[in-house]
Amino acid sequence: MTEGSLSHLVVKIGGGDGLDLDGICDDLAQMAKQGTRLVVVHGGSAETNRVAEQLGHPAEFVTSVSGFTSRRTDRRTLEIFQMVYCGQINKGLVERLQQRGVNALGLSGLDGRLWAGPRKAAIRIVKDGRRMVLRDDYTGKVEQVNVKLLHDLLDSGYFPVIAPPAISYDGEAINVDGDRAAARTAAALECDTLVILSNVPGLLADFPDESSLISAIPSDRVAEFIAVAQDRMKKKVLGAQEALSWGVKRVVLADGRVERPIQRALEGAGTVIGD
Amino acid sequence: MTEGSLSHLVVKIGGGDGLDLDGICDDLAQMAKQGTRLVVVHGGSAETNRVAEQLGHPAEFVTSVSGFTSRRTDRRTLEIFQMVYCGQINKGLVERLQQRGVNALGLSGLDGRLWAGPRKAAIRIVKDGRRMVLRDDYTGKVEQVNVKLLHDLLDSGYFPVIAPPAISYDGEAINVDGDRAAARTAAALECDTLVILSNVPGLLADFPDESSLISAIPSDRVAEFIAVAQDRMKKKVLGAQEALSWGVKRVVLADGRVERPIQRALEGAGTVIGD
Repeated sequence: MTEGSLSHLVVKIGGGDGLDLDGICDDLAQMAKQGTRLVVVHGGSAETNRVAEQLGHPAEFVTSVSGFTSRRTDRRTLEIFQMVYCGQINKGLVERLQQRGVNALGLSGLDGRLWAGPRKAAIRIVKDGRRMVLRDDYTGKVEQVNVKLLHDLLDSGYFPVIAPPAISYDGEAINVDGDRAAARTAAALECDTLVILSNVPGLLADFPDESSLISAIPSDRVAEFIAVAQDRMKKKVLGAQEALSWGVKRVVLADGRVERPIQRALEGAGTVIGD
Repeated sequence: MTEGSLSHLVVKIGGGDGLDLDGICDDLAQMAKQGTRLVVVHGGSAETNRVAEQLGHPAEFVTSVSGFTSRRTDRRTLEIFQMVYCGQINKGLVERLQQRGVNALGLSGLDGRLWAGPRKAAIRIVKDGRRMVLRDDYTGKVEQVNVKLLHDLLDSGYFPVIAPPAISYDGEAINVDGDRAAARTAAALECDTLVILSNVPGLLADFPDESSLISAIPSDRVAEFIAVAQDRMKKKVLGAQEALSWGVKRVVLADGRVERPIQRALEGAGTVIGD
């Protein structure tokens, strides 16, 4: 980061159960009032699973040949996903921040082409030990961040709160991984640090034993730890690896269930990945 | 409107069944590309009713002592309302516009305090012939529009697509009537015209007989026609009355099921209220 430029911080709020959203918003509001230029990216996975079940279109997860799990996203799933992420969770966070005196403004990656990237033409998965190819899935990845939109909003005093989906180069809504999208956003804003909050204290060597927290991972050993990570944590470590490769200096996987979760993460609580 | 200032148009897209959202977005995209500074406000009532039913919290409607119908909005209803309005419908419109080459950006009234106003402390209703007071309802009205945010977005080439809820002066999400919010928005943007699209050709003297369309209502007779209007149309005429009182010259209640619905409305198809 060049001397004198403004420092930004991206905070990813996980979509698992148990995060203390009020506590997180207390912390965010305090930091915003102290002048940190904050951008929030959030998930909504657990609630999406519940709503999908209630709406009679239960969630399915697929495992790629490289071992990563992702949500099977047909068109109806995409609609439900948008309802929960862009409607319920995004506006719930905006309301909490507004009540704390912060002028939050919620967007999805579709809005203003904030997060653009390719839709995957095919997903190679493993199901019951057999390889299969899915072609009708609405998933993809973020390659481009509309940084000008974020800067304009921050310059005008707004606090951006961003949810998936992103937008494909053909203008379709696409499900993208929130951790990796947060990594891309942190890199685009030239952040020194990305904080990823979830409902565990960080990366655990022996999941779910919370006393097995791995407190630090040096940049050159991140790949090994992708193999150690279980389930959803795998993509968080992958997101961290990507963020570091794009110039972010430090990614902290931290606990979103505690008081002052972000300030604690910045003080080093959790799994600090990078320098 | 002062000579030389930019001309804006607010289009309200109703939330009833049967509107041709693709046709509406074709028309909007064409007009946007021709340079009209457009702002869309949309509803989502019919879909909210369906989703609320599926989620086991069916919609309830109450009738005020002055004869207007509105959605009973307890906290759970507000969540469902946000899912449908801000998630499904808003992002569905943004995606359609993006696919037509328009850089749409969806917001709720919460975002950036775009629509602020008082929450009603009490709603006086009539139920089974008896008067009652509701005190735990999350409804209110829009009094202030963040016009600077809309101008900044329009100046940067974005196309704002706005959904209820609004934000109360205490920072709570509040359900507001979309037609009246559109009226307030059109007035704040100093629009000459507000177009309100629904699934009927306009105000019908003998609902649902579509041949009984009332083609014009002069400004000084709007109040009489609020009495003529049935159900949801009542608030559209009320919104029109408010828009006129705030300086909008003409409100067109028009058919959202036809081709080129907005350009047809501007040519006078539908019920033209005002000069």
